[in-house]
Parts: sequence; C-alpha cells; structure tokens
Amino acid sequence: KINGERLWDSIMEMAQIGPGVAGGNNRQTLTDEDAEGRALFQKWCEAAGLGMGVDEMGTMFARREGTDPKALPVYVGSHLDTQPTGGKYDGVLGVLAGLEIIRTLNDLDIRTRHPIVVTNWTNEEGARFAPAMLASGVFAGVLDQDWAYDRVDAQGKRFGDELERIGWKGPEKVGDRKMHAFFELHIEQGPILEAEGKQIGVVTHGQGLRWIECTVTGKGQHTGSTPMYMRRNAGRALARVTELVHEIALQYQPNAVGAIGHIDVYPNSRNIIPEKVVFTVDFRSHVLETLEAMVEELMETAPGLCADIGVKFSAEVVGFFDPPAFDETLVGRVRDAAKRLGYSHMDIISGAGHDACWVNKLYPTTMVMCPCKDGLSHNEAEEITPDWARAGADVLLHAVLETAEV
Amino acid sequence: KINGERLWDSIMEMAQIGPGVAGGNNRQTLTDEDAEGRALFQKWCEAAGLGMGVDEMGTMFARREGTDPKALPVYVGSHLDTQPTGGKYDGVLGVLAGLEIIRTLNDLDIRTRHPIVVTNWTNEEGARFAPAMLASGVFAGVLDQDWAYDRVDAQGKRFGDELERIGWKGPEKVGDRKMHAFFELHIEQGPILEAEGKQIGVVTHGQGLRWIECTVTGKGQHTGSTPMYMRRNAGRALARVTELVHEIALQYQPNAVGAIGHIDVYPNSRNIIPEKVVFTVDFRSHVLETLEAMVEELMETAPGLCADIGVKFSAEVVGFFDPPAFDETLVGRVRDAAKRLGYSHMDIISGAGHDACWVNKLYPTTMVMCPCKDGLSHNEAEEITPDWARAGADVLLHAVLETAEV
Ligand SMILES: NC(=O)NCCC(=O)O
Ligand SMILES: NC(=O)NCCC(=O)O
Repeated sequence: KINGERLWDSIMEMAQIGPGVAGGNNRQTLTDEDAEGRALFQKWCEAAGLGMGVDEMGTMFARREGTDPKALPVYVGSHLDTQPTGGKYDGVLGVLAGLEIIRTLNDLDIRTRHPIVVTNWTNEEGARFAPAMLASGVFAGVLDQDWAYDRVDAQGKRFGDELERIGWKGPEKVGDRKMHAFFELHIEQGPILEAEGKQIGVVTHGQGLRWIECTVTGKGQHTGSTPMYMRRNAGRALARVTELVHEIALQYQPNAVGAIGHIDVYPNSRNIIPEKVVFTVDFRSHVLETLEAMVEELMETAPGLCADIGVKFSAEVVGFFDPPAFDETLVGRVRDAAKRLGYSHMDIISGAGHDACWVNKLYPTTMVMCPCKDGLSHNEAEEITPDWARAGADVLLHAVLETAEV
Repeated sequence: KINGERLWDSIMEMAQIGPGVAGGNNRQTLTDEDAEGRALFQKWCEAAGLGMGVDEMGTMFARREGTDPKALPVYVGSHLDTQPTGGKYDGVLGVLAGLEIIRTLNDLDIRTRHPIVVTNWTNEEGARFAPAMLASGVFAGVLDQDWAYDRVDAQGKRFGDELERIGWKGPEKVGDRKMHAFFELHIEQGPILEAEGKQIGVVTHGQGLRWIECTVTGKGQHTGSTPMYMRRNAGRALARVTELVHEIALQYQPNAVGAIGHIDVYPNSRNIIPEKVVFTVDFRSHVLETLEAMVEELMETAPGLCADIGVKFSAEVVGFFDPPAFDETLVGRVRDAAKRLGYSHMDIISGAGHDACWVNKLYPTTMVMCPCKDGLSHNEAEEITPDWARAGADVLLHAVLETAEV
C-alpha cells in the first residue's frame, strides 16, 4: 500500500503554486506557474532517483529502471496544468500518485521487470490553448506538432513560443517512446461514484468530444438610435444557439452532454449591438453516432436560426476525439486490484477527456477514478478526501505492479 | 455660412488620432489618444484666439469673449471621445462645428453680445467607464463627482486616476459655469433623416435610457462530466434574458428599443459551464412610462426565468436619464435657421443620449442633427457626406448667432 499522508502532503504542496482566488489553482499551461510546478515535480523525481526525459512538446517522463533491459516501460501519469479557475486534484492526483508509487517501491525496495515512467503531459486542459490533451494528441500522432506550436492563447501568444519561454521544450522527438502500457488515475469530475458510494471507478470507456468554434456575425450598431427592425444582433444569435445546443443534448439523455463555456463578444460595449460573437460548443457522448448526430444537427439548424435574424453563422472544429474503449486486460487488472484491496468499486465511463484517451490509440491503456465531492470539477471548490486519494493510488499501485511484473 | 472644407479637413485631421482597425476611431475617454485629441483641439482653439478653461471632470471650455461683459455665454459643443470601434463623426462633428463657427465669426469679424464657448465634454460614450455622459451628468448635478471618479474600466482603472494620468484634471469646479443656452450638433446615428431625404433634423425630444447591469450566477462545472440535470448554466440565463429584453422592447414598437451590448462570461473556458455572466441591458424610449414599464417587466420576469434553471439573477442600474424635451424657443430657432438657409428638414427625436440631455436639466438647450449613411453609428464604418456636415454647421451657426445676438 502507498503512503497516503505523503501523497496528500505532496498534493497540498503543489497546490501552493499558482494559487487561485477561491482556494483552488490557476496554473495554466506554459505560464510561469506551470514552470514552477514542473520544477517542483522534477526536484521530487530526482530525490526519488528517477531520470528525467522531456520531449519537444514539453511532456516530462521520469523513469525508474527495470530489471530487464529489453522490457518496455509501464507509463503512469496525468497532468499538472490547471484551468484558470481549477481545482487542486484534476490531473495533479494522477501525476503525484505515479510519483507515490515510485516512492513506495523505493521504500519497500521492490524492483520491477519493466521500467516505470511517471509522466506529466503538457496542456491537458486546453483552457489556454485549444484543444485539450494537446501534447498527448501529438504523441499519438493524431495532431501535428507544428500545428500544435501555432495554437495561440487569448493574448495571441503562440504555444511554441511560450514553451520555449518557460524553458521546457525538451530534446526528445515526440512519440519516439514505446509503451508497454499506460495508466492514469484521475478524479471522476462527475457525481456518480459519490452518489453510488463507491471508492473506485473502473473506467471501461470514455466520452468522445467535439469542440466547435462558432462565429456569428451581425452588425455593430447603436443600441439607442437603431430601430428594432433594422437590427442584426449577434448576441441574439448566441442566445438561440445556446438554447439549441442544450436542446440537442437533451434529446440523447443520459448519453450526451452539450454546453457553451467560451464566449467572446465584439466590440463588447454597452451601447453597441453585438457585431460578432465567437463561442465554442462542447458536445460529448460515449456513443460515436450520437456525437456525430449532435454536430450534424447543430450544423443544419444553427445557420437558419441565425439567418432568421440577419446574422451569419460559421463554424470550425477546434477539438475532437472519438469515444475510447480501454484495454480489457488492464481494465480487468484495475477491477481485480480494487477487489483484492477491498475497495468498493463500479465500472464507469469517463465524462471528461484525458491524455489516456489519446495514448489508448497506440498502446494498452486504462484509467482509475476516484470520487470528487458533489461531482464538482473545473471549479476552485473541487474537493476529494485523503481516503479517496489513497484508495485510488493503492489500486493504481497494484494494477501497475501486476503489469510491470515484480 | 461656415467654411465646409475647413470643417471637413479638421474632422479628418482629428480622425488621424486613435485610428481604429477598420477606418474609424478608437479614441476612448482618458486614454493617451484622448489626450492627443484634446491637445490638437486646444492648439486649434488657441489659434482661433480662444481662452481655455478646464473643469475637475476634464471638460474643456474654449471661450470667445462677447461685447457685453454681463451677458452669459452661449455654449456649443459635443465630445471628442469615441467608442472602441467608433466612427469619425460621432461627437467630433459637434465640437469641430463649434470651432468652425468661431473661425467663421473671426473671418467675418463678427462680434456677439454673449460670449460663445466651444465645449468638449469628457466621457460622453460611456464605453470605457459607465455611464455615458458622465461629465455633463456631474455638471448638471445629477451624478456625484466622487462617485464619477470611482468608476472603473474593465482593467479596474479608476476614472479619477486616469483623468490625472493624462493631465486633464482642470482647476474649475464642475457646474460653476452658468449658461445662456447650449447647442449640440450631432449625427443622427439612425436611419430616419436619410430615408426621408432631409438634410436637417430639428430635435424636439430625446429618448430616455436605463442601463441595467445584470449578474447571473450559476455553477462553474465540467462541461463533459457533469450530467445535464445537475447543471446551473449561467450562459443559458444570459440566453433567456437576451430574448426577454428583445421581446419586451418589441411590445412597444416603434416607441422603444432594447438590447444587450456588454457581456462578460466567467471563467470563460471551453470546458467549464459558465459560472457567472455579467451583462448590461440597454432600454430606451422617449415615453417615460414605457421606459419604466420595460425595466419593471425585466425585473419581474428575469429572476424567475433564471431561477427555473438554477441560476440567480441580480441587477443594478448603472446608467439612466429620462426623456428630455428641448427648449421650445431654441428648437424654433433651429427650425427657422434651416428654413431660412433652404435646407430640407424635419422634427426628430434623438435616439441616442447626448450631453445636451443633461445640460437641458439646467439651461435652455437644443440639438441639430444631420443624417448618417444607413443609420450606422458606433461602428467604424460610420459615414456622413461633407454636404451634410456643412448644412448642419450652417444651421448651428445661425441658431447660435441668433441666441448670442450679433
Ligand atoms: N480531465 C479534464 O478535465 N480534461 C480536460 C479536457 C476535457 O475537457 O475533458
Ligand atoms: N451619442 C452617443 O452615442 N452617445 C452615447 C450614449 C448613448 O448610448 O446614447
């Protein structure tokens, strides 16, 4: 079993870096705070005797050697970057539980045949640079590296430039590493495990995602002197599409979700009718056909809803992944580990996207989930208990050990 | 008659300062660009022999002496600040037409009994610091000066600090000046004069305004892993209130307008359901009862529409003025001047708010309007013709001269 207190202390120490405004964290990818968090993780890895590799996307790979020089490593990890108003556990738990596994093996002087590599993927959140899971997407060969470098944040700063600026552009070619397996422990970010009173979620599948960046263009006119009949109000187009997205998702309950989280209004002045609104629709489902049907319905209906009020609608897919089905052998090992350790558990579908979804394209992959309070995540008030973290890391340890072979 | 070419050249020279991105201007109040525009206007005033006074709100008063030391001045002017995506004429025409009157009187060596004071009111637009017409509101005793100083822009900068920073906080106590009359020439900012083929709008009344800053508060949650039934989506509350505002205004056609131009979404991340949206409703009508009924209906209906989806609604009035009726004697002089000069004209209600609306509370006031292309204003593509500008300034000259007494 892992050392739950040590794990919790490390999580709390990491949470000191990039504090939020309401008890959580703002440690967005490739900011100075991200660099500080990376440095702390590196220090811990060195203290645990790990060798660090960094690839050209800035992803960190901290390796504990195995006994068999020819055996491929077992990878375990998640991400240290956060949302602008993020919690202390989303991502962090998975990276630091990987580190805790190493520390535990060191304590117990256990060697494994396969090396074990603790991984911190760059830009999982996608809040600063869309899409999410950018580095693992490039790693999996699904996203192009130059394209990734050209992603810009809201200030127009390039991903590639910011990666160099914080000093974490590594020498390793992205995707050169081969994996025996990949494991990711993560908080559920939803309400199911807590509601069902389970300590462990055995993740069999995940939802797929489409991010559709929409631009609605009307006419910026004076709010006072422009007669109602002359208006081409892009804000009303946003309103119509907001409700459309909600209604589309409702048709597929409980197998789909949909919302708009990102909205930029131009010129955003109290006495100018919105000329243009740029916003991103987030659709998800674990059923590929449903995901595709939702996008199709948006694309078919939204242009007309907007044209009715004199507003032009255009759209571009800026993020996507198909619903993953995780490796059955690894899933079985997670389930068995939970059983063996006496932790209550259930099969679950991941509602969020994770780096594991991309890695799963290439190598046997699975996830372990632990509950989070009120299903709340992507919120500074995100909370878990030390016992939940400990149980998740214990199950992770056992599943990893079985795969890395003692 | 005024010198139309000189007037047009001055407008074009002013438009060089704070250029926009699409042919218009971004010379928002109390920015470096505003300071530059003020300096140019000051230079022109000095060249025309005017003495400059500046009050504690930064409003500029450029005075041409009259022949009767006891006669109160006739004021004429408007504002040099613009929207972030503003036109070249909104406000500027009125200030520079005032200057053109002085230049014409100088050319013709005409003295008036009453002094004439050309005025540039600070922060008419209200785009950077709400409310609009801030300095004239303090001048009229309707808004408190310390409260005005405490208005903050989107970056949290205080009006008072920015006024000092650009060096235009003057020594004069605000409102100390007494006026014989106030005239403001302005572009219509609406489509009526052009559609009716009239050169001059004789402004008898104006619309009143209410700016209601609304805050809708839901819960920031993960867009992927939060089930639809658990959501408290503040973005949907925005959508509902957007349509409500539109419907409320439609009930009172053609005597009212309503829209939302300012929208800030928090935390504004693609995978976070909006936690909070802050937006400003703009309602206008020239009928006071209608204006009040619209606000009442919003306040009665919006909280329930939001509560239905688990979102809290709160609201605060951040801008207001009641529909003004301008001075009948001055209105008559404008009408007579148009007639005498052979310009086609019609009575009109001002759709926008103007400094004249506040000054009208204290002193005989009226406005002159000229058409603008396609009724388009608060847009960089705002356009007028040199002939329209000339006609407006000619009528202004005659009405001012009759009031200032040759
Ligand atoms: N786990 C997580 O929140 N990842 C961000 C990508 C997503 O929105 O699902
Ligand atoms: N004239 C003008 O656009 N003034 C700004 C105040 C308003 O919104 O009416």
